[in-house]
Amino acid sequence: MYDFAAELADCALAVETALDRHLDPERLSGPGPAAERVVAAMRHGSLNGGKRLRPLLVRQAANVFGVPSSRALIAGLAVEAVHCYSLIHDDLPAMDDDDTRRGRPTVHRAYDEATAILAGDGLLTHAFALLAGEQCHPDPTVRIALVTELAAGSGVGGMVGGQMRDIEGEAGGFSRAEIEVMQAMKTGALIRASVRIGALLGNADARALSALTAYAEAAGRAFQLADDILDVTATSETLGKTAGKDAESGKQTLVGELGLEGARAELDQIVNSAVMALRTFGPRADGLRATARYFANRSH
Amino acid sequence: MYDFAAELADCALAVETALDRHLDPERLSGPGPAAERVVAAMRHGSLNGGKRLRPLLVRQAANVFGVPSSRALIAGLAVEAVHCYSLIHDDLPAMDDDDTRRGRPTVHRAYDEATAILAGDGLLTHAFALLAGEQCHPDPTVRIALVTELAAGSGVGGMVGGQMRDIEGEAGGFSRAEIEVMQAMKTGALIRASVRIGALLGNADARALSALTAYAEAAGRAFQLADDILDVTATSETLGKTAGKDAESGKQTLVGELGLEGARAELDQIVNSAVMALRTFGPRADGLRATARYFANRSH
Repeated sequence: MYDFAAELADCALAVETALDRHLDPERLSGPGPAAERVVAAMRHGSLNGGKRLRPLLVRQAANVFGVPSSRALIAGLAVEAVHCYSLIHDDLPAMDDDDTRRGRPTVHRAYDEATAILAGDGLLTHAFALLAGEQCHPDPTVRIALVTELAAGSGVGGMVGGQMRDIEGEAGGFSRAEIEVMQAMKTGALIRASVRIGALLGNADARALSALTAYAEAAGRAFQLADDILDVTATSETLGKTAGKDAESGKQTLVGELGLEGARAELDQIVNSAVMALRTFGPRADGLRATARYFANRSH
Repeated sequence: MYDFAAELADCALAVETALDRHLDPERLSGPGPAAERVVAAMRHGSLNGGKRLRPLLVRQAANVFGVPSSRALIAGLAVEAVHCYSLIHDDLPAMDDDDTRRGRPTVHRAYDEATAILAGDGLLTHAFALLAGEQCHPDPTVRIALVTELAAGSGVGGMVGGQMRDIEGEAGGFSRAEIEVMQAMKTGALIRASVRIGALLGNADARALSALTAYAEAAGRAFQLADDILDVTATSETLGKTAGKDAESGKQTLVGELGLEGARAELDQIVNSAVMALRTFGPRADGLRATARYFANRSH
């Protein structure tokens, strides 16, 4: 019987431990001196007890093809490094201007803006170093496919482009279709890349990759919609960040468009379609199924 | 007879043309909508008539092994994208706070800070997408080596770490050795990566790679020392950026440490050692020899 809570905890611990080992000033600075301040800021922005949902998706997708979790860890770290860099840059005064994240000062608050910009740049760069290393996967052809996938998910056609559209959308006037496209880029693209990276680690064929991509796109929509619902219903304390911020800043969300009940009904439908996309995979995909449900039901 | 001015102009034109083609909203946005604003900012920060010295080093190093210039262009674009991202982030108010670059508004002045941060992130991410693509080199093992090289040169052990150390050094008190290490990371690491990427495109053996690395390290030192000398001797007009800014901001340079004449003598020695490192390569390395001399003698 698959135990989601156990896997979530095991994955989070594995990621935290491995990030701690990798984000080491001596290890990262290579032949030069340890750039201690920027590495300390990178650690502050990533060793923070996050749920590590993207590395979880990498390993669950890899598990579908029989790849052991330990062989999916490095690729998971790379995706998590990209996620953490995006949070550090998004929190900057010029972007969302957030002072706290997970109950601790944001990186630019704990250090300063210049250090936070560089820490984000350092994490993004390190993500590609992780994917390129032999430890990630023995076959360079697979590693190159991972680099391509991560760059596509995190670049202008994905996360960076979505963040830009989100800022543009704050002025208001986005249609429901435009909101969905923006969210698919900002949040969905990295979730999609995580699942596809897991599948690529397992040498998935085109048909399996396509099914997992459909799963990932639905899971990403569920994640974002649940986030928007939480922004309306949760308190700042359970959320670990400032609640109600989206509405306050005039940010476009689907809850504003559909209403709370409409959004909840839509969320159920999306989770069903995510699970349906996995129908050919049997019990090896139970992890991915549980994660899609978790995305919809989480309380923070 | 090798014509440096002709190669410099040819390479700059090839890079400008190819960047213009690659940094296209439709092409970059993939399946999503064109994130036009961020791509426009990426173009503003990179299509600016730069000298394209790093792509020049890539192609000159590749030429040593008989690789035609056209086969070194994509890798050159990747290095240039990293260089341009670093300038966009360095110019931000939280970093060097520069209003102009090459006589035009910096990206955060022409757009805004959020857009400039995202444009830099987008260029850095795209650099790795360029290296991972088949157009860059047919062999995935070579492409993975290029990703590793670029990540090492631009990350915490290289450019990002050097930028952090430079900010820390503004408080004063760096020794000559510490200044040299900081500059080797901030400027030297990407120059070193450019030359090594060219060599890797040409399947250089360990001995050739080692000789070219020695060349690159000396060329990088020459480049930085010439820059420091120019900061003291040139006017803002010929320089295309604010002159005297380093001294004003209390930034540590070797000219401050050695005096102007001492720095010029040191520069001659460094160029000689760069040229000496190429002694086994014959006329195929004339391009690299000319570039090292150009680094030392340029007036802007």
